[in-house]
This record gives sequence, C-alpha cells and structure tokens, in this order.
Amino acid sequence: MLTVKDLTATRQMLFDMLDEIPEVIEMESVDLADALGRTLAEEVYAPADVPSFNRSLVDGYAVLASDTFGASESLPAILLLDGDVKMGCPADHALKAKTCQAVPTGGQIPDGADAVIMMEDADDAGDGYRYMNRSVSPGSYIIFRGDDARQGKLLLSSGIRLETRHLAAAAAAGFGKMNVRRQLRVAVLSTGDELTPPGEPLTEGRIHDVNQVMLTAMIRQAGAKPCSYGIIPDEFITLKNVMKQAQSACDVIVISGGSSVGARDHVAAAIEATGLPGVVQHGIAVKPGKPTLIGMCGGKPVIGLPGHPVAAWFMAGSLLLPVIYRMQKRPEPKAKTISATLTRRIPSNHGREEFILVQLSGSCFDSPSSCTDDRPGPVSATPVFGKSGLITLLCRSQGYIQIPRDCEGLDEGSQVTVILLDSDAQMNLENA
Amino acid sequence: MLTVKDLTATRQMLFDMLDEIPEVIEMESVDLADALGRTLAEEVYAPADVPSFNRSLVDGYAVLASDTFGASESLPAILLLDGDVKMGCPADHALKAKTCQAVPTGGQIPDGADAVIMMEDADDAGDGYRYMNRSVSPGSYIIFRGDDARQGKLLLSSGIRLETRHLAAAAAAGFGKMNVRRQLRVAVLSTGDELTPPGEPLTEGRIHDVNQVMLTAMIRQAGAKPCSYGIIPDEFITLKNVMKQAQSACDVIVISGGSSVGARDHVAAAIEATGLPGVVQHGIAVKPGKPTLIGMCGGKPVIGLPGHPVAAWFMAGSLLLPVIYRMQKRPEPKAKTISATLTRRIPSNHGREEFILVQLSGSCFDSPSSCTDDRPGPVSATPVFGKSGLITLLCRSQGYIQIPRDCEGLDEGSQVTVILLDSDAQMNLENA
Repeated sequence: MLTVKDLTATRQMLFDMLDEIPEVIEMESVDLADALGRTLAEEVYAPADVPSFNRSLVDGYAVLASDTFGASESLPAILLLDGDVKMGCPADHALKAKTCQAVPTGGQIPDGADAVIMMEDADDAGDGYRYMNRSVSPGSYIIFRGDDARQGKLLLSSGIRLETRHLAAAAAAGFGKMNVRRQLRVAVLSTGDELTPPGEPLTEGRIHDVNQVMLTAMIRQAGAKPCSYGIIPDEFITLKNVMKQAQSACDVIVISGGSSVGARDHVAAAIEATGLPGVVQHGIAVKPGKPTLIGMCGGKPVIGLPGHPVAAWFMAGSLLLPVIYRMQKRPEPKAKTISATLTRRIPSNHGREEFILVQLSGSCFDSPSSCTDDRPGPVSATPVFGKSGLITLLCRSQGYIQIPRDCEGLDEGSQVTVILLDSDAQMNLENA
Repeated sequence: MLTVKDLTATRQMLFDMLDEIPEVIEMESVDLADALGRTLAEEVYAPADVPSFNRSLVDGYAVLASDTFGASESLPAILLLDGDVKMGCPADHALKAKTCQAVPTGGQIPDGADAVIMMEDADDAGDGYRYMNRSVSPGSYIIFRGDDARQGKLLLSSGIRLETRHLAAAAAAGFGKMNVRRQLRVAVLSTGDELTPPGEPLTEGRIHDVNQVMLTAMIRQAGAKPCSYGIIPDEFITLKNVMKQAQSACDVIVISGGSSVGARDHVAAAIEATGLPGVVQHGIAVKPGKPTLIGMCGGKPVIGLPGHPVAAWFMAGSLLLPVIYRMQKRPEPKAKTISATLTRRIPSNHGREEFILVQLSGSCFDSPSSCTDDRPGPVSATPVFGKSGLITLLCRSQGYIQIPRDCEGLDEGSQVTVILLDSDAQMNLENA
C-alpha cells in the first residue's frame, strides 16, 4: 500500500531516485549558431594559436622599435617606406632595418618588425620616407600570435551552459560546430477518449486536449526536448505499448489524464507493465493535484499528471520541471515573488497543501513608475476561486500563493508571498 | 560635421528616431506549439462555448438534485440506474425523474440532470438501483457549458507575449494556430577581407569571423530573427549592394568591422548610399567602442559596430539590443548586478565612458551556501585588463563595471556595481 505523501516529500523521493540512475551523457555535434544555451559535453582546447599571426591593433607603420628610439616631432626618425601589407594577406617580405611597412588595423606584422606607429604619429612628405614623430617601445599596438589563446590552451570547460561569449571564443578558435550534451528527451502522452487535438473540430461529448501543448511549452522552457506521443485512448494494451516505446526512446515520461476511475487504473497498470519498480506513489496531499502518480520504469521517471489542466500545470511545475532541471544538472530558476495583502479570507485547507491563484493590483501594476525593485509598493492579492478544470483561470491570474499543509486558513489583510506566474508579470516589476 | 556623443545621448537619439518610423505590424500564423514567447497580433475570442457541453467533475451519478433532497445514510434516496455515459460520447438519452445515470469524470451530463453525486456517496446493492447517501444541491460537481469561456468572450488580448498559460487557454478553445507578429528581422553583415567563417581553415594573415556568430546569438536571445548576410569584402560596390538588399528585406541592419581607415570609409559610404538620412553619428565617447557608426536608411536603423569582438559585444548590448527591444515593444530585461569591492585601482578614463571586465570572487562564488539573495556576502571584483581585440577575456570574466565619462579613476577598495555577464553567474547568486 502506497501512502499519500506531501509535495515536498514527493519531490525529495523523486530526487533520491534520480540519484540512483545513470546520468545522460551522450553528446551530439551542433552548428555553433545552434549551440546557444546547450551544455558543452567536453573540454574545448584551442586547436592553434589565436590569432595565428602577429596583428596590428591600429592603422599605421610596422617598425623595429629601436629604429624610433629618441624620435620626437622636432627630431623625427626617418624610415624608408618599404611595402604595404594587404588586409587578409601575408606580409610578403621581412622588415629591413631603417624601413617601415604600412599595415592596416588587423593586418599582419612583417617578420623583423616588433612595434607599430600609429598613422597619425607619422608624416608623409611625399619623398618615399615616413617621418616618425615619436618613439614606440617593442610590442606597441601589436596583438601577438597566441595572445588571445595559445594552441592547446583550455578555452571552455565541459559542462558549462553555452552563452554568447562562449560561442564567440569558440568562433575565434575556428570551431564551426560544438559537441554538446544531447537534450533530455521528455515523452508527452495525453490520455482520454474525450480528447481532440486543438485545431480539429469537436464532436459532441469531446473537448480539446490542452495538456499536450501546455506540457510541451513547459518542457521546452526548461531546456529539454519534448517528444509528443499524441492522444492515447483509455485502453490498457494501447497505452502500455506506447509507454514501452516512450520508455525506450526517452529519458522521462509525462502522462496526463486518466482522471476517471477506470482510466486511472489503466495509467497505473501501464506504468507497472512498463518497467520496474513501476508505480512508487499514488496521490499527493495537495490541491489541486491529488491524483498525481509517480513511477519509475527501468531507470526512467514517469510522472502521471491529473487531466485537469490547472492541476496538471501546478504539478508539472512542482514535480516535472524539478526532475528535468536536476537530470540536466542545471539550477532550477528561482521563482519571482512579491509580498501582497490578501483582500479576502481563505478558509482552512484541511490538511492538504494548496495552490491558490490570485489577481494582483497595486501601484506596480497600475502605475509602474511609483515603485522600485526593492520596495514594489503596496500590492493586493485577490484569490481567484473557481472549479479546477477551468484553464482560463490561469490567464486571469498574475500569481499564486502556496498554503502550507496545516494552515488553519488566512485572514483578510494577511501578508502573503505571491509567486508570479510568468515573465510578463516579472517584467512589470523589474522595469518598474 | 557629426559630433561624438556619449552612449546615453546616442541611445536617446536612436530612440527618438525609432519613434518616427512606422511600427512593424505584419502578422504570421504559427502552430500553437511554436507560438511560445511570440507576440499575439490580434484579440482572440472564444469561437464556441468552452466546454461545449455540461461535464462531470467527478466519477459518479448524474441526478436531478431535487430527487436527493433529504437523503442521508439512514434514509438514502433510491434511484434507478438508467444508463452509463461513455467518455467522449454524447449522453444518449435524457435523465428521467427518480433515475440516475453513471458518468465518468469529464463525461457529458445528460439533459435533465442538474447535479452529480460522487460514486463514493452512493451504494450499489446489485438490484439495479443506486442508494444515494446524501443530498446534493443543483450544479454540484458540474462544469457547465461555457463555464470556462462563453462563445465570443475575449480570451487573449492583442500584444501580449504568449506564455504557456496563454497557449493552454488557446488550446482549450480549440485553436491549432495563432496569429502572431512576425519577428523583427535583423540583418547581420560582417565586413573584412581578413575574415574566414568558423569551421573553415585559415590561410595566412586571416582570422575567423567572431561577430557573425556572436551577434546572431544576441539577436535571438532578444526574440528577433537574425538574417545572415555573411562576410562582405572591404569593397564599396559589393558592400553597398548587400546593404541595399538587407535594407529592403530587414527591419534593422547591424554591420561589424571596417576597422581600418579605408574599410571604415566604405562602411560609412555604403550607409550613405543605402538610404536617407544615412550616417547620423560617427564615433561614441566610450571605450571600447569609439568607432561605432549610427545610421538610418529609409526608416531602417543601421548600427555599424567595431570589428573587435569585445567592443562589438559591448556596443551591441548598449545600442543594438535596446533598439530591438524597443522596436518589438518589449521591455528590455534589466541586467542583474551585485555590489563588489575593487581589488585594484582603475585609472582615469580621460573623458570617455568605459566598460571594464572583471573577475569576481567571494563567498557567493566560492561557497554559495554562505550567502542569501538579499545579502550575497562580500564579493571582490578584479579588473581584467587586456588588449580589446581579445575575445577570450569575455570568457575569463564574470561581469563588468561601467565607469562614467568624467570619473577621475577608482581607488582600490572602492565599492562598485558589477553588471553580471550572463545567466550562469546570475544563477550562481540566485541559487545561493
């Protein structure tokens, strides 16, 4: 007999199970342009010196620094102009003493030269010589071969999340592709004989499938790859077969629906038939979300979500996303919260942790300029009560509050912590 | 003669110019699954009642509530079981008085019924009747047709950024596609005879193009669509032709390179030749980034960035991204900052605003558990000095400080505000 756990204990049990299964470490090669946000799968070393030649940092003249020592405007160093390095081409001959060669910014410094004098520090009298009005020390205005990275130097460490600047360094070292960890594959199954895909007309007694689209978006936002297995009828053999396919092809399975008694049994039985140990928990002391199932099938976690979209949304956020982040070894983004005053009493939740959607109002929402990041000004939270199957409730809310399991209810006027629903609401505050 | 402005004045000038050009309002239809993060281009109304029929919220029996009034365990209401509604199918006959019909969670409520009694509140004695142990009031455990959204009701407002919950509401209403604003198209041009695409071998005197990959990633992160025009040689006619193509196909042009005197002239001349008014600013009092060009060609902003990747990175962040966000009417994400103690003196910047990369150390980075979000504990910032062409500097830094134009330098031990480079460093603090 599986006991009903609370949400925190359920999440911890999931984490403990994840610690026992092998990490997903396969890699794949992706174009540099597509590597943004992916996890680097190996150490990256510079395959050659970067840059691969001595480059000028300015438009000027390549010189031997010692030829300019003591030069000034009143006593310029006079050097024969002996060439003109072309951009993107090798300098075609070495610098001879007492000569200079013109070089553009980024051009190659000829052998024998050890400094560049800026164009504005040299005069051209039209006689084939250049009159250097100042001295330069060796190394001036040159990026030397390997200054950015020496051949064999560690450029990027395995396991980092690739940001723009990492891609830039890889490009500088000449990489056109990167080996990254393959994304975590999350199988998404909707079950229910009453479901029709959005975009198709409904026949009587049917509704459109919300959870497939919703879970796909959540999985993508967490950096994993959703794999749709579509809508599966409430029928054991079919469900078991699809689950088996998903279990062999994916790393995590999320299945929503099966909320009627018979269908619920099929989902639990299909988890049992898909791999060991099967169902490890059935039911969570939380509202909405009580009928959530947790399974583990041959090292692949299975989350069985309620069919009601709002309940599925809360449970996916509370259980599926933490699993995805943990399996990808990425820190879970911390939810943004604000403090608000409750406009209405919330009754006791009778021993179940409870999520309550709220609408926010206050200066930050009505006139953003009146409050700062640190003190967003007074905000009021009004609970949005409604039957849990109503998905539009989520669109009419800006956040939710989480009431602990043993709370005896909250009075009107209580200060509560509101978890903001999405980045728009966050923006509202961040840009206040 | 165009005067050199500082960065703030340059940005303001750009914003003022953007206010004069027409907003990009074309729309495109995308699959619901691809609409995440896009901007909704029109009001979305429910095309039909959601749900389209009265549904049961539980497994139980559809009844006429008045048939149960007064029922209790000691005196149950006895109702003939007169049917079994199948999931996803219409209820095939209306409820007659003194009867009940079994309905699964989500099943259709037959005509004539106005409440559901939960299965656990009814006994089955095997005699074809059900014994209802409690009374229910009309409407109990039913989601009525249109409860989630009435036909014609405004579901989503034009201009919102589509989040998971919006896609869920659209799915519930049956939409398979959404009309969203087309993404802002940003043309990316690299100029320079010395450039070779990453992934291709270098010949002598050449370097790999960093800016194309870097700018592409930045543009994507800002929610716009990068359009690559590749590497353009330092040659006026070709550059002008490509610029003209980019100007007619895209909304913004970003061109990097042209850092040598001759090439710089080509870029400015090409901007002038592409559309009016042409170059509006040449040079910004900032380090790195001085040779940045600003143009406007027939209502399309043009940002001419320095070729040095680090300078291009700072100027793209300071000018290109604000333009992209503003043209998309999206708030610019606020950079995360922390306060840190400078470990070294920074000399005067001689009247140019300056960006200085820093490495961070301190308890948050070394032992994240010792500090909280509000007080991240003492952090030290060490300036990373280096020639501005070195892209690997960006990978060795965690943040940067921005020194105002007229600062006389900062002493060792000063408190400075460090702008964190990327989400990894932010995560480090957020999850501390």
